Amino acid sequence: MTTRRHLLAGGAAVAGLGVAGGAAVVATTGRESVPATAAALTTGTATVPFHGPRQAGVAEDPPAHAAFVAFTLPAGTDRRALARMMRLLTDDVARLTQGVPALGDTDAPLAVLPARLTVTFGFGPGLYRAAGLRPPVADLPKFRIDRLESRWSGGDLLLQICADDPLTVAHTQRMLIKDTRPFAAVRWVQQGFRRSPGVQAPEHTQRNLLGQLDGTANPRGAEIEPVVWNPDGSTTLVVRRIRAEIETWDKLAVTDKENAVGRRLESGAPLSGTKEHDEPDFAQLDESGLPAMPDFSHVTRARVTDPKLKILRRPYNYDGAPNAAGHPDSGLIFASYQRSITEQYLPIQQRLADKDLLNEWITPIGSAVFAVPPGCSPGGWIGEQVLT
Amino acid sequence: MTTRRHLLAGGAAVAGLGVAGGAAVVATTGRESVPATAAALTTGTATVPFHGPRQAGVAEDPPAHAAFVAFTLPAGTDRRALARMMRLLTDDVARLTQGVPALGDTDAPLAVLPARLTVTFGFGPGLYRAAGLRPPVADLPKFRIDRLESRWSGGDLLLQICADDPLTVAHTQRMLIKDTRPFAAVRWVQQGFRRSPGVQAPEHTQRNLLGQLDGTANPRGAEIEPVVWNPDGSTTLVVRRIRAEIETWDKLAVTDKENAVGRRLESGAPLSGTKEHDEPDFAQLDESGLPAMPDFSHVTRARVTDPKLKILRRPYNYDGAPNAAGHPDSGLIFASYQRSITEQYLPIQQRLADKDLLNEWITPIGSAVFAVPPGCSPGGWIGEQVLT
Ligand code: HEM
Ligand code: HEM
Repeated sequence: MTTRRHLLAGGAAVAGLGVAGGAAVVATTGRESVPATAAALTTGTATVPFHGPRQAGVAEDPPAHAAFVAFTLPAGTDRRALARMMRLLTDDVARLTQGVPALGDTDAPLAVLPARLTVTFGFGPGLYRAAGLRPPVADLPKFRIDRLESRWSGGDLLLQICADDPLTVAHTQRMLIKDTRPFAAVRWVQQGFRRSPGVQAPEHTQRNLLGQLDGTANPRGAEIEPVVWNPDGSTTLVVRRIRAEIETWDKLAVTDKENAVGRRLESGAPLSGTKEHDEPDFAQLDESGLPAMPDFSHVTRARVTDPKLKILRRPYNYDGAPNAAGHPDSGLIFASYQRSITEQYLPIQQRLADKDLLNEWITPIGSAVFAVPPGCSPGGWIGEQVLT
Repeated sequence: MTTRRHLLAGGAAVAGLGVAGGAAVVATTGRESVPATAAALTTGTATVPFHGPRQAGVAEDPPAHAAFVAFTLPAGTDRRALARMMRLLTDDVARLTQGVPALGDTDAPLAVLPARLTVTFGFGPGLYRAAGLRPPVADLPKFRIDRLESRWSGGDLLLQICADDPLTVAHTQRMLIKDTRPFAAVRWVQQGFRRSPGVQAPEHTQRNLLGQLDGTANPRGAEIEPVVWNPDGSTTLVVRRIRAEIETWDKLAVTDKENAVGRRLESGAPLSGTKEHDEPDFAQLDESGLPAMPDFSHVTRARVTDPKLKILRRPYNYDGAPNAAGHPDSGLIFASYQRSITEQYLPIQQRLADKDLLNEWITPIGSAVFAVPPGCSPGGWIGEQVLT
């Protein structure tokens, strides 16, 4: 993390540093007329290496903007078509992430500021079935809290496009959709955001649209490795669109908001402690003899102690158009990476679905699961282990 | 402009510098745990002064994110109700733009990183009629290129919310809609973006989603004054939602794209010159004896020589969800400020509507006009000259 910020702040041009535990960010020399003086202006030219044993876009600090694009394969798609599609898309992404226009990029000038662009490929159960293979991931069971809409759910192929610049995301999205068009139809697109570059240091937890510090207990640095990566470089991704009832949430007193989560609103500290990164003490009692960390608080229910059974959350905020009465359409594009959905994600989600004070203010309206194949070397392509 | 960048880059804490020719940006001391070392992290704490003879959000370099929120007044709204509404909203905005929570801000922690937040108020014709006044602005006439949809058109009150951070825009939008709810219904919301902070220096022209350098001939610095500001500090705003047919645009050869605009794609230079800021020479002939600047190019048709008759363009890109066939829903939220819509905007728009090669690839689908009242002093409120 420090290395990355050093590179960004210093604007040094350094060659690829490998991808172990998260790809390193390399500030390339400006391809457009970016003044060499201003260190802050390396935001546009910073790149994340594409090639490596693991895909990028998972373990790095999430850039400010994301588009999750899910596709449906037409009936009759076979393994040969899938391999053709993935070869083409891999080539596009290998270029675009390095600030080089895709082959046949009709808007080449928009490709030169990658701004830490990553594109991560996920394969849905349907892609495996089309290839005549047993899917390694399965749709989540229906939870009682779910109000899923098909327009935000499922998908045979997913592109998670992230960059620190929204024009870069839009251009990449367009080029990749264009090249996918002969092979698959767009199923849904979800666009999300976090703080702009330079607004907060990457090691500081960001707030979500409910005003909560979101990400405190997330694995970081070396903790990510056992949570996310299978030995072959693969992982899995769950994407849930979760609407937040911000207007009713806002009618709560601060202490009620804090009890629902189990952490203080201002500092993010557990209700049993005083600082954000204090370990929650679930045995501690408050002055009235009740657990300081309420039994049904989100944190109490979501907590996992075994480091191998945690998940890596990588959520983005969404904010659609409010309705005529002025009620917002906002929430989280909740994305989480883990080795195994069944062993890591499901038990947490089941506990939260059964009992979580926060449920009164959040509603899952979309759900999708993807296997994330390993990365590839120059000359290789994403999915080659699966499709050949 | 240089002053602003100095402040931003240096992270100096300087008191309000007045608002003549665009409000100065002041990097306030961090209210959250923002490391004092990192100069780049002043992006979040930078503020634009709110009080002054002119509203902010017009002459400054446009921040990266914007939400244009238009409201409809219910029948029976009178001047007293309007004054109450504007007092309340002015108070909210005076606080939020300085990184201070609004009174009754239910998500105070989201208010502390203003990121150059400005909120600019526009009054539509209907607001004047409700107040028993003759509207100083009128809806544009219908142009033959228009395919206007009511869901993107009209409005009695407009809030133009701009900031360098998308969470700040979302929070501000929500608080202001909430406080407007007793007085008016949301008519439409248009969210747009430009390059993220730090991606390009403010004095560099940005590209739009068609890949064009957009803003080259815009008035800058002292040229803005005679274009935008009436002696009383008021101005006017036109907002047009213009869909871009990017997919067909992309089928064009580069020279055809260049002929449509009258400028080179890569450099932005006029077809009669070699550098971006060369003055176009409309008399120059090319080797085949035709005008180097095509008669019907966008620039030829849009050009105005009298500095007082120019307009100040302040557009944002939009990128909605593509359809199932993968065709994008993108374009410009074209916003322009000028003293007078009739004298400055209309003649340009009429010439473009009559003949502009670019028309084949752009379609106006929304349109709205607003009078932008003067700014106010501490204790005053926006609209006081109009409504009392
Ligand atoms: C809109 C929906 C959600 C919101 C607003 C939300 C918010 C939060 C907040 C504020 C925290 C405490 C700070 C932190 O450690 O990040 C937290 C922790 C956590 N959340 Fe959520 N969350 C949501 C959905 C979910 C879902 C769907 C899951 C997984 C199924 C989940 C799993 C976790 C986990 C594992 C933790 C860390 C618990 C710990 O070990 O301390 N959350 N969440
Ligand atoms: C999607 C719609 C539009 C696109 C993509 C577009 C694009 C451009 C581009 C690329 C330029 C040349 C570079 C520059 O000076 O900025 C330009 C110039 C200009 N445009 Fe547009 N434009 C659009 C709509 C409009 C509209 C609606 C108006 C006003 C009614 C307008 C007025 C102008 C003016 C005044 C200039 C400067 C001309 C000069 O003096 O050189 N544009 N536009």
